Amino acid sequence: MADPRFYTVAGPLPLGKLAGIAEAEIIGNGDPGKQISDVAPLQTAGSEHISFFDNNKVYREAFAETGAGACIVGRGVETPTGGGMALLAVDDPHRGYALVAHAFYPAMDANMEPQAEPVDATAKLGPGVAIGRGAVIGRGARLGANCRIGANAVIGPAVEMGEDCIVGPGATVRYCLAGNRVRIAAGVRIGEDGFGYVSAAKGHLKVPQLGRVLIGDDVEIGANTTVDRGSGPDTTIADGVIIDNLVQIAHNVTIGRNTIIIALVGISGSTTIGDNVVIGGQVGIAGHVTLGDGSKIMAQSGIMADIPPGALFVGTPAVPQRDYWRQTVTLRRLAKRKPSER
Amino acid sequence: MADPRFYTVAGPLPLGKLAGIAEAEIIGNGDPGKQISDVAPLQTAGSEHISFFDNNKVYREAFAETGAGACIVGRGVETPTGGGMALLAVDDPHRGYALVAHAFYPAMDANMEPQAEPVDATAKLGPGVAIGRGAVIGRGARLGANCRIGANAVIGPAVEMGEDCIVGPGATVRYCLAGNRVRIAAGVRIGEDGFGYVSAAKGHLKVPQLGRVLIGDDVEIGANTTVDRGSGPDTTIADGVIIDNLVQIAHNVTIGRNTIIIALVGISGSTTIGDNVVIGGQVGIAGHVTLGDGSKIMAQSGIMADIPPGALFVGTPAVPQRDYWRQTVTLRRLAKRKPSER
Amino acid sequence: MADPRFYTVAGPLPLGKLAGIAEAEIIGNGDPGKQISDVAPLQTAGSEHISFFDNNKVYREAFAETGAGACIVGRGVETPTGGGMALLAVDDPHRGYALVAHAFYPAMDANMEPQAEPVDATAKLGPGVAIGRGAVIGRGARLGANCRIGANAVIGPAVEMGEDCIVGPGATVRYCLAGNRVRIAAGVRIGEDGFGYVSAAKGHLKVPQLGRVLIGDDVEIGANTTVDRGSGPDTTIADGVIIDNLVQIAHNVTIGRNTIIIALVGISGSTTIGDNVVIGGQVGIAGHVTLGDGSKIMAQSGIMADIPPGALFVGTPAVPQRDYWRQTVTLRRLAKRKPSER
Repeated sequence: MADPRFYTVAGPLPLGKLAGIAEAEIIGNGDPGKQISDVAPLQTAGSEHISFFDNNKVYREAFAETGAGACIVGRGVETPTGGGMALLAVDDPHRGYALVAHAFYPAMDANMEPQAEPVDATAKLGPGVAIGRGAVIGRGARLGANCRIGANAVIGPAVEMGEDCIVGPGATVRYCLAGNRVRIAAGVRIGEDGFGYVSAAKGHLKVPQLGRVLIGDDVEIGANTTVDRGSGPDTTIADGVIIDNLVQIAHNVTIGRNTIIIALVGISGSTTIGDNVVIGGQVGIAGHVTLGDGSKIMAQSGIMADIPPGALFVGTPAVPQRDYWRQTVTLRRLAKRKPSER
Repeated sequence: MADPRFYTVAGPLPLGKLAGIAEAEIIGNGDPGKQISDVAPLQTAGSEHISFFDNNKVYREAFAETGAGACIVGRGVETPTGGGMALLAVDDPHRGYALVAHAFYPAMDANMEPQAEPVDATAKLGPGVAIGRGAVIGRGARLGANCRIGANAVIGPAVEMGEDCIVGPGATVRYCLAGNRVRIAAGVRIGEDGFGYVSAAKGHLKVPQLGRVLIGDDVEIGANTTVDRGSGPDTTIADGVIIDNLVQIAHNVTIGRNTIIIALVGISGSTTIGDNVVIGGQVGIAGHVTLGDGSKIMAQSGIMADIPPGALFVGTPAVPQRDYWRQTVTLRRLAKRKPSER
Repeated sequence: MADPRFYTVAGPLPLGKLAGIAEAEIIGNGDPGKQISDVAPLQTAGSEHISFFDNNKVYREAFAETGAGACIVGRGVETPTGGGMALLAVDDPHRGYALVAHAFYPAMDANMEPQAEPVDATAKLGPGVAIGRGAVIGRGARLGANCRIGANAVIGPAVEMGEDCIVGPGATVRYCLAGNRVRIAAGVRIGEDGFGYVSAAKGHLKVPQLGRVLIGDDVEIGANTTVDRGSGPDTTIADGVIIDNLVQIAHNVTIGRNTIIIALVGISGSTTIGDNVVIGGQVGIAGHVTLGDGSKIMAQSGIMADIPPGALFVGTPAVPQRDYWRQTVTLRRLAKRKPSER
């Protein structure tokens, strides 16, 4: 169910073949001859798709409610009652998914084919669009009115940008759908592979990254910042977000409206940032956590758990600001005492 | 008063019109028909310029001594006695300034026009200059003798570099005046927009970034490092500074001679770094602070206040090295005791 | 002894002349007329090479066992008994080495000459290689079968990559020998100058960086990451290593098989990372330390000393995980007490 503008699927494939590829056992009511058209996340999969569930608490509800026609699961998983979903049991469902996804998307990187012309003949440019010297616009890309693309920038195939967008020199934008008045500074990398691997003793199996980067209106992204595309779900940046230089935004991250992110921040995969959040410089945020609307994180903090809306957190591991300063003052006082008085 | 080589001003504009744009009330001796030619910082503004003062302690002296013809101020500000400066009173002077600056500089980004030729016909190249394949040299740029520009690098319009400079492949240099023997590695981003916004409930208003990046002689800048141009004042890097990879230097920062900055450091806006300072890797430095000459900051420290000359600071928030180690040892000892003995 | 595919040496030079360049005194059995062909590290130098030893404990053994024909040493160093090595005594051996290395390698950057064609006529491309629009392939570069080079990427002179490699758009690869199935994302900088300087009162003397970057098979390197080339030794990344975005890897670092490095990590010069190590995001690692096989470092930690194999370390300065949490809990409890009870 990857966006066909960006990815070419090699399906359909019969369930029995997929079971072989995933090194899986079909359990329950699976028909090996059933045709599966594509992989898809639990939340959006339909009866023609295969998904996976690695028994993670976060996705339990999505698993119970999924419309997927087939699902790769761990051996011994408690299966949902009813429904016509076929189950493929494996030791490591994420690995099983990676193997199946490679079967549906065997191409190394279909978006890198050479181009005869700087602006591909199938690209559509609105009125007033200006393309800098050496910039490359891929096949089927669409740029709205008055977009300005800097020298030696690269707009990948099928990318869409709205009106009045700016892409700085040397930036690259791939697998991306962006709104109006988006400003992307020099050297930004939108849409590269997310960091998705299944690790085993003999090495790391790459998980195909099949999502996109969705960017709203009035977003600004600073120099040399990187925003990876989703792994299957999308990486999403809402309207009015401003991001400083050298920030890392991993796959499947969601960032809410008007949020501010200062330089050198790292946001790990599948984390959700609310609206009007302020994230100080060099903050690190773990994967799969949520920062509530209006929360603030002071510079250099490390976030390993959810942050409530409106809260102000500091430190590594981050605590509410008052606690942080109390800890800092306590330690300073203790350190000033003679050893015998501590 | 932005450098006309880099920016095209849309003035003059009458004070009365500017008051309307800034949503301001003219107080004191302001003639609505007075022609204002440009925006300028308090320190350098003349009688034909409009500046702003947001009642910040740091700029109180500059406000008292400014030669500006007009100034946007907060309501109720204590105005300097005497002088012929007109005052425009608003709720948020920085927002008022941003609105007025947009009026003087309405173009989105005048420096990104397409070019017919890789090296613009108006660029001036000294003897022995070598331009790599695919590099783009903008209109009116000047490169001194023996400069070497890497493949696919971009030198923006009106940029000036002295003799024997090297710009690595894929780097971009814009809004910049540089000295001799400057070495800029691959992927460096010089002169992108500073991170300047006025935030309000309905979103962030961009503050036009109208300054430059000034680089002295014998400066080295490492791969993928970013140096934003000033917001009105300049970002300044003195002779002999060496900067490692992936460093972020924000707008209006000043860095003194022979200072060393290791990888992944972030320096926030308007901070002043002295001569012969050494900044360890991943250090974060807040805005508007000063690091004294010869000070040293250990890796990963966080600096939120001024550092005295010659001092050695460590930790977040940073303290003198001796205090840091005492705190570290104290905490280790306490943690080793049984809970009842702490 | 720099790789002649990447560097052009200006030797041989007689020992007496080198002594003058290094501002050194020949001690022991040095013949001023002896011809020296090149600089080389202690470990690999032969009788025709000059090396240096700055009395560092780390290199004591290498100094005792070196086959170098000449060596720049500090005054008063205890010299190895026997052997025919000539010694050049100076105050600062690293400075002496830098001066001599500049004499052997006087060119600013021989790898940046302009090219007439996007793909140099002397480059060798295997079957199925695809070169994106605007990409530049340097003289003598070799790309194995089915390599795909993104738009506006730059492959430097003499670079070699194996089969099925991908180089993303806008990336630059220089001074590098890479294996098969290597994936380099957009904006990556391979092979830029290491951060090597000798500092003195009057400024910093650059140390010529004469090594390479050696990359094994199945390595992945994330967007805008930087991997500096070695200073004389090489920077080495073994098979199966996966590196996230915006990581800094300094000169002479060695990374073992299947190691995982998350975003925004900084690894300082000459550090050795074992096999199957996992390094969390924003970790900083000092120079000249060793991380044992299978060790894990939690996000944002700071490593200043060797880490044992299999250990799990956290914090700055990093300690074993159990100690870290005990310290964190201890400080939280103390801070919650009334001041009189601490």
